[in-house]
Amino acid sequence: MCKRALHYPQVETPPPQPFLKSLKNTLNEILFADDPFRKIRNESKTSKKIELVLRHVFPILEWARGYNLNYLKSDVISGITIASLAIPQGISYAQLANLPPILGLYSSFVPPMVYAIMGSSKDLAVGTVAVASLLTAAMLGKEVSAVENPKLYLHLAFTATFFAGLMQTCLGLLRLGFLVEILSHAAIIGFMAGAATVVCLQQLKGLLGLSHFTHSTDVVSVLRSIFSQSHMWRWESGILGCCFLFFLLTTKYISKKRPKLFWISAMAPLVSVIFGSLFVYFLHAQFHGIQIIGELKKGINPPSITHLVFTSPYVTLALKTGIITGVLALAEGIAVGRSFAMYKNYNIDGNKEMIAFGMMNIFGSFSSCYLTTGPFSRSAVNYNAGCKTAVSNVVMAVAVAVTLLFLTPLFFYTPLVVLSSIIIAAMLGLVDYEAAMNLWKLDKFDFFVCLSAFLGVVFGTIEIGLILSVGISVLRLLLFVGRPKIYLMGKIQNTEIYRNIEQYPQATTLSGLIILHIDGPIYFANSSYLRDRIGRWIDEEEEKLRKSEENSLQYIILDLSAVGNIDTSGISMLEEVNKILGRRDLKLVIANPGAELMKKLSKSKFIETIGKDWIHLTVAEAVSACDHMLQTAKPDSPEKISGVPEFNNV
Amino acid sequence: MCKRALHYPQVETPPPQPFLKSLKNTLNEILFADDPFRKIRNESKTSKKIELVLRHVFPILEWARGYNLNYLKSDVISGITIASLAIPQGISYAQLANLPPILGLYSSFVPPMVYAIMGSSKDLAVGTVAVASLLTAAMLGKEVSAVENPKLYLHLAFTATFFAGLMQTCLGLLRLGFLVEILSHAAIIGFMAGAATVVCLQQLKGLLGLSHFTHSTDVVSVLRSIFSQSHMWRWESGILGCCFLFFLLTTKYISKKRPKLFWISAMAPLVSVIFGSLFVYFLHAQFHGIQIIGELKKGINPPSITHLVFTSPYVTLALKTGIITGVLALAEGIAVGRSFAMYKNYNIDGNKEMIAFGMMNIFGSFSSCYLTTGPFSRSAVNYNAGCKTAVSNVVMAVAVAVTLLFLTPLFFYTPLVVLSSIIIAAMLGLVDYEAAMNLWKLDKFDFFVCLSAFLGVVFGTIEIGLILSVGISVLRLLLFVGRPKIYLMGKIQNTEIYRNIEQYPQATTLSGLIILHIDGPIYFANSSYLRDRIGRWIDEEEEKLRKSEENSLQYIILDLSAVGNIDTSGISMLEEVNKILGRRDLKLVIANPGAELMKKLSKSKFIETIGKDWIHLTVAEAVSACDHMLQTAKPDSPEKISGVPEFNNV
Repeated sequence: MCKRALHYPQVETPPPQPFLKSLKNTLNEILFADDPFRKIRNESKTSKKIELVLRHVFPILEWARGYNLNYLKSDVISGITIASLAIPQGISYAQLANLPPILGLYSSFVPPMVYAIMGSSKDLAVGTVAVASLLTAAMLGKEVSAVENPKLYLHLAFTATFFAGLMQTCLGLLRLGFLVEILSHAAIIGFMAGAATVVCLQQLKGLLGLSHFTHSTDVVSVLRSIFSQSHMWRWESGILGCCFLFFLLTTKYISKKRPKLFWISAMAPLVSVIFGSLFVYFLHAQFHGIQIIGELKKGINPPSITHLVFTSPYVTLALKTGIITGVLALAEGIAVGRSFAMYKNYNIDGNKEMIAFGMMNIFGSFSSCYLTTGPFSRSAVNYNAGCKTAVSNVVMAVAVAVTLLFLTPLFFYTPLVVLSSIIIAAMLGLVDYEAAMNLWKLDKFDFFVCLSAFLGVVFGTIEIGLILSVGISVLRLLLFVGRPKIYLMGKIQNTEIYRNIEQYPQATTLSGLIILHIDGPIYFANSSYLRDRIGRWIDEEEEKLRKSEENSLQYIILDLSAVGNIDTSGISMLEEVNKILGRRDLKLVIANPGAELMKKLSKSKFIETIGKDWIHLTVAEAVSACDHMLQTAKPDSPEKISGVPEFNNV
Repeated sequence: MCKRALHYPQVETPPPQPFLKSLKNTLNEILFADDPFRKIRNESKTSKKIELVLRHVFPILEWARGYNLNYLKSDVISGITIASLAIPQGISYAQLANLPPILGLYSSFVPPMVYAIMGSSKDLAVGTVAVASLLTAAMLGKEVSAVENPKLYLHLAFTATFFAGLMQTCLGLLRLGFLVEILSHAAIIGFMAGAATVVCLQQLKGLLGLSHFTHSTDVVSVLRSIFSQSHMWRWESGILGCCFLFFLLTTKYISKKRPKLFWISAMAPLVSVIFGSLFVYFLHAQFHGIQIIGELKKGINPPSITHLVFTSPYVTLALKTGIITGVLALAEGIAVGRSFAMYKNYNIDGNKEMIAFGMMNIFGSFSSCYLTTGPFSRSAVNYNAGCKTAVSNVVMAVAVAVTLLFLTPLFFYTPLVVLSSIIIAAMLGLVDYEAAMNLWKLDKFDFFVCLSAFLGVVFGTIEIGLILSVGISVLRLLLFVGRPKIYLMGKIQNTEIYRNIEQYPQATTLSGLIILHIDGPIYFANSSYLRDRIGRWIDEEEEKLRKSEENSLQYIILDLSAVGNIDTSGISMLEEVNKILGRRDLKLVIANPGAELMKKLSKSKFIETIGKDWIHLTVAEAVSACDHMLQTAKPDSPEKISGVPEFNNV
């Protein structure tokens, strides 16, 4: 065994790098992991370079050249389809945000056009979303009443949209898109389910025809508000709402069973609106407890750039609302863009998408729109309808513009209860039991994150849910670093391979030495833990040996293969462990330290301290070196010699 | 090669564990990493068990039995030595906290007695510390003036001490001591240096004999305050101060050069106080611009339990101050206890120490003491003076009590400028240039943490420094998880070992496949990054192959040895990567997944998806399996066959 050790190469310390170069590499890796400018950098001609940059910034230049009539046909069909969904949904969600219904239509006109120029997804359909709408209402409503001060409320909504767009653009430009990743998949599932529950509960207002309602979103306040007004409930409204809800859910069910019939559920909201309006118009139901939308202003988006509020005390409110809703909108939009890109096998650059979202919200806030993103439902309809490029968004925008110019009077009689049904039907799809059960099966911690997001939203506020889930997710990362696994390794019989003896029960430990594997970086947050834990492993092993009267412990091999990095506290810890071991007459041996570790350990003279000969490329080699020493180095204590290493089945 | 693969055992999925059991194990590992109750648990007799528990709670029962006259002799000598340091330092630090000087003496009486009963360090000397004193002054002083409302200020200081003690006890009882570890070594170096700078600047007040002074601690305000009062400077005070400072620094220098003469620097503060007082007494210097302490009340600690303030609005201020100063005090005390324990080779249980610190502060707050901990300087003197047990603390307490009962009138003429000199001399030792330079050498990031703590304290406030350094340290942990290293592995010639080709330039890549090593857990925070990064490695490799017209890529081996854990986002990422690779006609192969990974991957059916045959115990085996397939499986595309793997030197 020890003969073989001589063939192994030494553990290498990588050549030192100048500080600035390594800083640049690190920053590159953090910010430009996907190396988006590779093509541009490799191009030598300046004119070509400029063209590439333009194409990078405006993806429309990329795909417009290959555009053809077939594409146009598909895009028109899908554009019209999503417009028919966008109009009723837009009006409904604007209601949810306590904003004038017409804003929902405005928001489906300007932003999709901007996205068509700057966005890189071919399938994303732009529009407002329920959760961000409700969140806007909840956050702005806490300080400014939409009923008492509608003008200020409206202007603050524009300002929040502006800040959301600004933040999104900045995140994208600074390549900080990864910050959005702190919303884990599990957190989003729980958060969405909670938000959907809350939104549905809010719709009871419309469904029951109530005119006063609580501003809080938690389930307790909402239920109290509903049941305290039971004498105000309007059965007419309730029955009408349930009928439409049944219709909408049935069409959803059909479309889900037969994906080819996607257009049934896509058209259902518009059909509901039409039927609902006709019902009210002919039966004069507005006088029998059915609330209606009323007059919508004709004409496309009026400018709103002068309405942005930049004066205290409201600017901080708008800023806060903008940032939180903006991050949420980003998380949804990018996830949607990415998943459809995966189906069709093209790439989406998250940071570039952020800039597109940001620009679309900035321009939106200048033209009477509120926060938009790429909602999942609408994009799925777009995809199913066979869209080819972002032209479908343009077609939708044109259809909405036509509606705005000529058709708004048609919505006069649209009952609010239909809008509530549309929202509820859309929201029920967001409660994803199966995904939550799957989390429980796969990863209890993720389920816990999901659950706390859900409970936080349902019993607290939407923000509490967000903060809870992000906090717990981050705590998990910190726990991983703070409590890295450290386990005993054993030799797998008939091989030279050492593995975790818990995972491989057939692996055997060797007498006279223990091999510990540390599964994570060694940082200040875990160095005391690791020191204590190594001490405990040794104590336990010595106790065991004492009982069985076997050879005493002489070598501690630390397998550092999985230790990605170390900081100065970690180095001190290793030095301390080495000293403690020295005092107990034990020798520390290191196996397979990585590049980063070798660099730091050699700079800190730790390698000199324990001796370069005690650092080995593999565990097997370290064992063979120890074994060699056990056989030869201690002729004065013959009871410690073990001719052949003894295997103790664990 | 492929023949050998057959000998390797399969990668094992560990047996499933009931949820509650695995939860218990996890919590145990987080909270009871050092298994403190091992002995008690192993004991079967109840009476013996109770004895062990008592001994665990009150370590005095452990060591008192072996106590002898020799120990007592040593402890009396060291106790007297630290008392001579404690008295002037106590008075000085109480001044720093804007509290009556007598509190410094009170605080060296009760808390050391409590610690002697409950503490487990043999070398720690209990007392107040400069940084926590200044922080108390800065935090309380922001809302309550010590000059205008001295009574309330004093009571708030007691209350803050009570909360600090309560928090420390709770952290210890709940075994949450690891939370203190978020203060990394680097952060503490920078923080201490900054605090020392700030404290020294504050002493210019005493040194220059100024009576009005700013409440801010940042360097700009302090310098402005000093230079705006240049007409008030008292040269007498300045000269006297400089003389004493010179004397103190000289004694420090001597003691540092010859550690046996430690008593010179230990006695120097008392000597300065005596000489200073005599100087004032005989020269009537108090009438010539030298401020003096004035009258100190005789008698030991009066009770203060009824003075604790639990009414708003002040209770939150006291709570906040208590928590921040308490954490700082803990961090210092535990680090000091641990380092001396290491010299003498005994163990300190951090959580038990926290309870001791907590109890000593709770009892302190009941008896007119403010925040105490185990200061480094005093403990070092204790250690050097040859203390054997915590009895030296008792001796110090008795000496202080005697002083309180009989000797306080002697301090009437003590000049404040001497106290300032004592503080400055003590503080200069806290600025550790060498440690900071060492950080720069070893770990730039740690240096950055240290620097920001320093600058935060010096130019902002002490809290800003603390928050900055903790924030940046935590950011580093998150960055580690968010951007794990992922590198190409190559085969080290004449071995079956695969390693990072950047660390081992002699390692060679193989044709037709690439081996990627992921150096960290796969979590939501890095799954998009890893997906992009894997994609980029493949793109780059394919581009290289296209240029060199070699065999095209067919296998991607992911070495998961260092992937300690995975969450559901990570599993989705792997599934996504597998799909993307499938679409590009590449096969994903997994090498050496750990226990946790195997559990989750098999539950999620990922293993079924890629096929159990494509999961290998080692990279070598995975390569040999791929190689086998390359040789046999594709007879229809002969150009892809490579009889013997070709090595490309990188």
